[in-house]
Order: sequence, then structure tokens, then C-alpha cells
Amino acid sequence: MPEKKESVALLVAAGDAIGAGVARRFAEGGYKVVIARRDASKSQALVDELSAAGRNIRAFSTDARDEATVQALFEQVEREVGPVEVCLFNGGANIGRPLLETTQKIFFRAWEFACYAGFLTGREAARYMTARGRGTILFTGATASLRGGKNFAAFAAAKFGLRAVAQSMARELGPKNIHVAHLIIDGPIDSAEIHRRMKESGVDPSTLPPDTMIKTSSIAEAYWYLHSQPRDAWTHELDLRPSAETW
Amino acid sequence: MPEKKESVALLVAAGDAIGAGVARRFAEGGYKVVIARRDASKSQALVDELSAAGRNIRAFSTDARDEATVQALFEQVEREVGPVEVCLFNGGANIGRPLLETTQKIFFRAWEFACYAGFLTGREAARYMTARGRGTILFTGATASLRGGKNFAAFAAAKFGLRAVAQSMARELGPKNIHVAHLIIDGPIDSAEIHRRMKESGVDPSTLPPDTMIKTSSIAEAYWYLHSQPRDAWTHELDLRPSAETW
Amino acid sequence: MPEKKESVALLVAAGDAIGAGVARRFAEGGYKVVIARRDASKSQALVDELSAAGRNIRAFSTDARDEATVQALFEQVEREVGPVEVCLFNGGANIGRPLLETTQKIFFRAWEFACYAGFLTGREAARYMTARGRGTILFTGATASLRGGKNFAAFAAAKFGLRAVAQSMARELGPKNIHVAHLIIDGPIDSAEIHRRMKESGVDPSTLPPDTMIKTSSIAEAYWYLHSQPRDAWTHELDLRPSAETW
Amino acid sequence: MPEKKESVALLVAAGDAIGAGVARRFAEGGYKVVIARRDASKSQALVDELSAAGRNIRAFSTDARDEATVQALFEQVEREVGPVEVCLFNGGANIGRPLLETTQKIFFRAWEFACYAGFLTGREAARYMTARGRGTILFTGATASLRGGKNFAAFAAAKFGLRAVAQSMARELGPKNIHVAHLIIDGPIDSAEIHRRMKESGVDPSTLPPDTMIKTSSIAEAYWYLHSQPRDAWTHELDLRPSAETW
Repeated sequence: MPEKKESVALLVAAGDAIGAGVARRFAEGGYKVVIARRDASKSQALVDELSAAGRNIRAFSTDARDEATVQALFEQVEREVGPVEVCLFNGGANIGRPLLETTQKIFFRAWEFACYAGFLTGREAARYMTARGRGTILFTGATASLRGGKNFAAFAAAKFGLRAVAQSMARELGPKNIHVAHLIIDGPIDSAEIHRRMKESGVDPSTLPPDTMIKTSSIAEAYWYLHSQPRDAWTHELDLRPSAETW
Repeated sequence: MPEKKESVALLVAAGDAIGAGVARRFAEGGYKVVIARRDASKSQALVDELSAAGRNIRAFSTDARDEATVQALFEQVEREVGPVEVCLFNGGANIGRPLLETTQKIFFRAWEFACYAGFLTGREAARYMTARGRGTILFTGATASLRGGKNFAAFAAAKFGLRAVAQSMARELGPKNIHVAHLIIDGPIDSAEIHRRMKESGVDPSTLPPDTMIKTSSIAEAYWYLHSQPRDAWTHELDLRPSAETW
Repeated sequence: MPEKKESVALLVAAGDAIGAGVARRFAEGGYKVVIARRDASKSQALVDELSAAGRNIRAFSTDARDEATVQALFEQVEREVGPVEVCLFNGGANIGRPLLETTQKIFFRAWEFACYAGFLTGREAARYMTARGRGTILFTGATASLRGGKNFAAFAAAKFGLRAVAQSMARELGPKNIHVAHLIIDGPIDSAEIHRRMKESGVDPSTLPPDTMIKTSSIAEAYWYLHSQPRDAWTHELDLRPSAETW
Repeated sequence: MPEKKESVALLVAAGDAIGAGVARRFAEGGYKVVIARRDASKSQALVDELSAAGRNIRAFSTDARDEATVQALFEQVEREVGPVEVCLFNGGANIGRPLLETTQKIFFRAWEFACYAGFLTGREAARYMTARGRGTILFTGATASLRGGKNFAAFAAAKFGLRAVAQSMARELGPKNIHVAHLIIDGPIDSAEIHRRMKESGVDPSTLPPDTMIKTSSIAEAYWYLHSQPRDAWTHELDLRPSAETW
């Protein structure tokens, strides 16, 4: 996929870990970057950082769990920023809970954030991309995309569902020159959040063996590679884990 | 699992094909059968048939997509009929649609019927069964549980999700002596519905080669076998297809 | 599959655990049973037991790793005992070894016993069965059929290979009315061998929680169920594990 | 994995399609390239081409199906050329054959070339790499690595087996800083061989829609990407297919 400068990488549900890493990588690669998340102000530091470095980046507040809102987001981005060449959906927070404590609300929310919003995002991206006959749609998966573990009914149901969406889209859109890929992250991500939690539990993250957590820049590089693949050789699914991970 | 006569086989979202077949098999096996579906009157002929044969069967109208309704169903069945020893969830209708025509509503409904209702049903069954330390929970899967095909984003997302629920439940509940199994039906089911559709398309079902469609009695027998397995050797997942099926 | 009395269940690489269990079950089901293993004398006690009970059983010494030998076995059984209606291949011993200690010989032998002999057995069974247009071919798989674990390169390579053979055969032979099934045993088997090893390690098997090991009679019952399935609803793959198993 | 110039990329069973592509890519990336194949003279044109371009490349005649020969190969390469930093195993030819026509010899040879030689190659690579605490081992898979198709018992058994080897090695060697990856090629490869066959069947390859065959340079780029991944984020398995491929 030859990159088309001046086009847009739209990162939906892009948070401070993977989302920020992908933003940096695609900005560096010459893309205008648009971050869409529930509270865009949380990305202000990133916007400032990349803008100061001469990159083109904006952040929009969006709730990707609503069809009309997602449609309005794409309309605005296409009109105000440029054609969406790459779309990443990165939503969904890992949640573990014993079955009997998994309320209707927990189950619904896990699905809404990780699967439903992903479908709405991917479908809208497909709408613009099929019209242009080009584009890349990227989904973030997890260990729970492949394995329904004990205490993870809600999260696994959502991630299995998102994987089904990605697979169906890949099979339908590949021949239309839309590359749909699903990246399975199988291990802890080296984020501010995880450092905070470790410190709370009395663990000093700096004492961990090296390479036990996945760097967000490495995840971003994997997405960049997927996007860069020529259309004669596309990857649909790829796993990433630290060398030290037991699996 | 030695069968405990006088206990209940509760069949949720049990329709006229698989649902009726399973009702017949478990009634024959000595269970009190309770059918729970949106419109119980549709099972009246089956209730009459089995009652006339001396079986114990009732049908309840229920909407399994609502937590409180599902909880009320279990309470009523346990109080009025008996302890639920076996619970089948059989919901969800196969729906194919190109991605761009898959509306928010279609995607949501597919999930609501095939995955969400399955979670609510399975969780309530688990609540009563873990308290008693015994029981069997059965889920109906499909080809789309394993493969996200072109035009099947909505249905596959729902069926992948249900499979995740089944797997998570199996891993959590197995050691508590609850057997959770997921049966993957990979082929057309020999039902009144499919005969009707064939005739509409000008095909006479009686001219088809034998064994190209799965009989509902064969599916019921598979569920009976799963339920009958001793707890030293439980199957979690099993596929069923006609001998003539290409896969 | 309606059983044809007077026909043969041929159990290849059938040892004292699973093999003996399957022999008892199919003998009880009315089949003439033929056990084929490297040293038939090891099955003498079983032959005596079943013969005393009025069953028809014989044991042959065979090396299933040689094409001509396997062909001679089938010829003799078909000529002297009867038509092979069911054929089980049960070969291969679990072996764990760090990669660098896995010699050429270890790797070759694991494959020869678990995969190559399975192919030769299945193919010869198919030869007779396709000519008659009926039959069941059963393969024993293991956890290592699905997962290449640390220290299990040799065993997993063999078991993955056998699974490929079973799948290819199922797809080719299904439409010819030959049912090919692959049973994945995911847990320890309750055998004299494992009891012996436990005692050697100072563990008294009788103190283990119930249902932590799979009974060979339960495995045999699963094979019997698979064989009994009508051809409109065949299972190709089925897992078995004790309820207490963590997976 | 920071590349260590002056070290060696050893490509075993590297033919004129994928093998040559990978040779060019790793030579360009600064590696000394060693090709090992049954008849090294077949790579003479490639050796001449790359040597003329100032690259460091040699070709050795080797039979990778023999332990002592593979050990001698590694000894010679390590002594005469340099430390093996990257090792690719690319053996095995796709062969389809109805089950009953799959002789003992065909089944054995498919396994010997695609699985056994891969194990011997990977294990020897692991021996040198674990001693140095670094390295990358790459295996070429195919559609048949995941699916045992009709008429493909021999090839699928071999490719499933190789995948098991790759998985076992990855789990054992990852924590030792050896990256083991398995690349699944799901589609036709754009090679001189396939062009020749098409012409023989009266098809002009130039009339095919674009991007229906995978370019060997794209496969090589995927291997290069895998090798370049930092150890906090390694991919074990990745698929590649043309955008137009139906799967």
C-alpha cells in the first residue's frame, strides 16, 4: 500500500498507550492524524507534542458506540481534514469478573465498547474506502480474542465478536482493495497505567526483567508494517508478545 | 452425569426445529421439559403431542434478552416445575447481509438474540446449578461460530461471542461439576422452514440426496449424549455435519 | 450408522488402557473385536476375559509402521474374521524432551508411531470401506494435537500430523459414507500405568480428588457414540477432559 | 532485533522463488547470505547476480533430511562464513493426491522434506543461537498448515507437523531470546514455475487480474519485518495472501 501523503489516519478509541503510539508513528510517516475518543482533552498533551514537532494532528471527542455519532465523525473528518486512508479501532478495556458477578450492564458495556463500536467504526471506514477503492482498517485484539478464559466471559465475548467482524470484513473487502487486519496483543503493555498499578501493589516496574512488557511503539510499528504491505501480500492476523511471555 | 428424574430440562429460545427435537428427547429420557420462547403458543402442538404421550411438558412465553425476565423465568420454573438439571440455549437466527447494508439495528439484534440472551440464560442456570453442585448447560453454535464469512459480520460476531461465553463458563464451572458444552452445527437443518423455502424456490426437498440435511432428532441425540457423559470425561465442543457436507 | 453384527472392530495400536476399554465396549456392542499391537501376547488376559464372557475377540501381533505389514493385517482380518466396519488407530506415546535433547531418532520414532502408522492404518481401512460404501475410522488425539508446547516438539509434530490425516480423510471420505472422527483427550488417563507411576513418586492415587483422570470406559463410550451417529449428523472432532481439568 | 552486520542469514531448502527473494532481501540488509539446497548449482545465477552487486553470498549443496549433514552444514557455515543470526527453513513441495493413491513413499517424502528437515534445521540453529543468546528462526507454512483438505493428507500432515515444531520451539526459545516465527502463505506464489505451468495449460499469466499472486519480494519483506521486531513484541505467526484471494 503506497502511502498517500495528505491523507488521514483516523484512530478511534485511541487512548494514551497504544493510541498515542500509533499516532506518533503515522504522523512520522506523513499522515494527518485524527484521534477520536470519548474525551479529546485527554489527548491534548499528545496534540501539543506532535504539533510542536510540525506534525498534523487533531483530537475529536466522540462516542463510537452510536451509529449517528460515528457517521458524523467520518463526515467531519473527510470534510475538514482529508480522506481517511487508515482507520484504527482500538476500543475495549480488559475486565475480569466471576460469572455470577457479571451483571447485564457489565456484559453489555464490554461488548458495546470493544465490539459494537468496532463494527460501527469499521463499517463507516469501509463506506468511504470502498468508494475510493483503497484503504486500511486495523483492529486491536487480545489474548481473549482467541480464548474464553475463566472469569472473562464478558471481555472474551466482546473480543471474539470483534475478531469475527474483522474476519468478515477482510473476506468481503479484500477484493475491493481494502486491507483489514487484526492484531492480537498477547501480553502486558508497557503503559503509564500499568506502571501506576504496579507501584500501587508495591512493585517497582524498573526491577522487572527486560522485555516482559510490550512497548506501544512496537505495537505502532506492527500497525505501520501491516499498512505498508503491498496488496499482493496482505496479513490478516498477527500476534505480538514479549519474548519472555509464557503462552 | 446420572440423570435425576423429576428434574427439569429448560430449553430457552427453543423453536420448532432443534428446540422441539430436544424437547422430545429429554422428555423421553424422563425429564420434565420446559420450553421458553417469545411466543409459547407456537409450541402448543408440541405440548399437546408430548402431553398426550404422557410426558411432562410446559411452554412459557419469555424474552430472554432481558435480565429481570430471565431471572423471573428461572424462579418460576424452579418453584413451579422443579430443579433445572439441564439448560439449553438455542437462540439466534442466521442472517447474511453485505457489510454496508448491516445497520446498527441488524448488528445489535443479531447479538441480542444469539449472544446476549445466551449469556443471561447461562448465567442464571449457573446460579442455581452451582448452588446444587450439578447441572448441564448446552449452547447451540454454527459454522459462523468459527469463521467470519463474507456478508456475515453480524451473525458471526454474535456466534463468536456466544462461543466465548460457553468457553469461559466451561473453564469456570467445570470444577464445580457443571458441564458446559457447545455444539457446532455445520450444515443445513432438516426443518419445516427449510422445506418451505426450498419449495418456494421450486426445489422439491424429497429429490435431494439423502443425508444432506441434519435431522433435528440427531442434534437432540448429540445433546443427550453430552448430558449423559460422566464427569471424568466431558466434551466441551463437538461439531455435527451431514456426511455429504463439503467443509 | 446402524451396527452390522458379525462385522469387525479392528483396534490398531490398542494397548492396555484405551485399547482394552474400546475392545470391551465394541465387544459388548456385538462386534467381533480384533486387537493389533506389536506384541499380541500382552492382550492375552483381555482376550481370555472377553472370550470367557462369550465375546468374539482375537489379538494379532503387528507392526503398523510398515505398509506391507498393515496391508497383510487387513487382508488376514477381512479373510479370517470378517469385514472391518470400525477401525481405531490409537498409537503414539507422549514424550517430552527439551529441544536440544530431541535426537533425530526420538523425533522420527514419535512420528512413526503416532502419525505414520495412523496414516497407513487409516488408508488401508479406507480401501476396504470405500469398496463397501460404509465404515467408521477413529483416531485418538491429545492436547498436543492442538498445541505445540515447550519440550514437546516431537510429540506435537506427530499429533498435529495425525490430526491433519484425520481431517483430510474426513473431507475426502465423508461423501463416500465413511465416518472419520478424531477424539482429543485433554487430561490424564486413569490407567494401571499412571497408577504405577504415581506410587513410584509416593502418591497414592486413591487420595486424588474424584474425576481428575479420564476413565478408559468413558473414552470407549465416546468412540461408541461417534460410531453410532447417523450419517446426517457426524462429528469429526470432539474433546474429552475431566471436569476438574484446568485448560 | 538489532541486526548484526557480518553475521549470516542461512537459508535452508531455499529455492528459486521464496528462497531467492529472501536471499536478496537479507543481502540488501547487510547479511552474509548462505543458501543451502540439494543442488547448489541451481542457485549459481543468483550467486552471480548478488556477487556482482557486491553482496556476500554463497550456496552449499546439502541434504537437510539427514542429521549429520545438517550438523556439518552449520559447523562449516559458522567456521567459514560467520555466526548464523537468521535461519530460514523453506522446504516442502505442495502435493495433492487422493488418499488411496498416497503411497507410503509419497507420505514419507512429504514429511521428510517439509517437517523432518525443518526440525533438524531448526534444532541445529537453536544449538548455536542459544549458546549466543540471540537469533531468529523462520519457517514457511502454507494453507495446509491449518487445514487438512481433501486429497492433501500427505502435505497437510507434514505442514501441520512443521507448525507444531515452530510452536514448540517458540515457546521454549522465546525466553532465551531466540525469535521463532511461522509464516503462513495462503495463496499462489508468483514464480517462474507457476508461469511455466500456466502457459502449459494455455493461460497467459499476464492476463490475470493484478495481485492474484504473492510476489516473492513481498514474502521476503515479511520475513525481514519479523526478523526486525524488537524482543518486547515478537510475532509468532502471520498469514500472507493476495487481496483477491477467497478464503
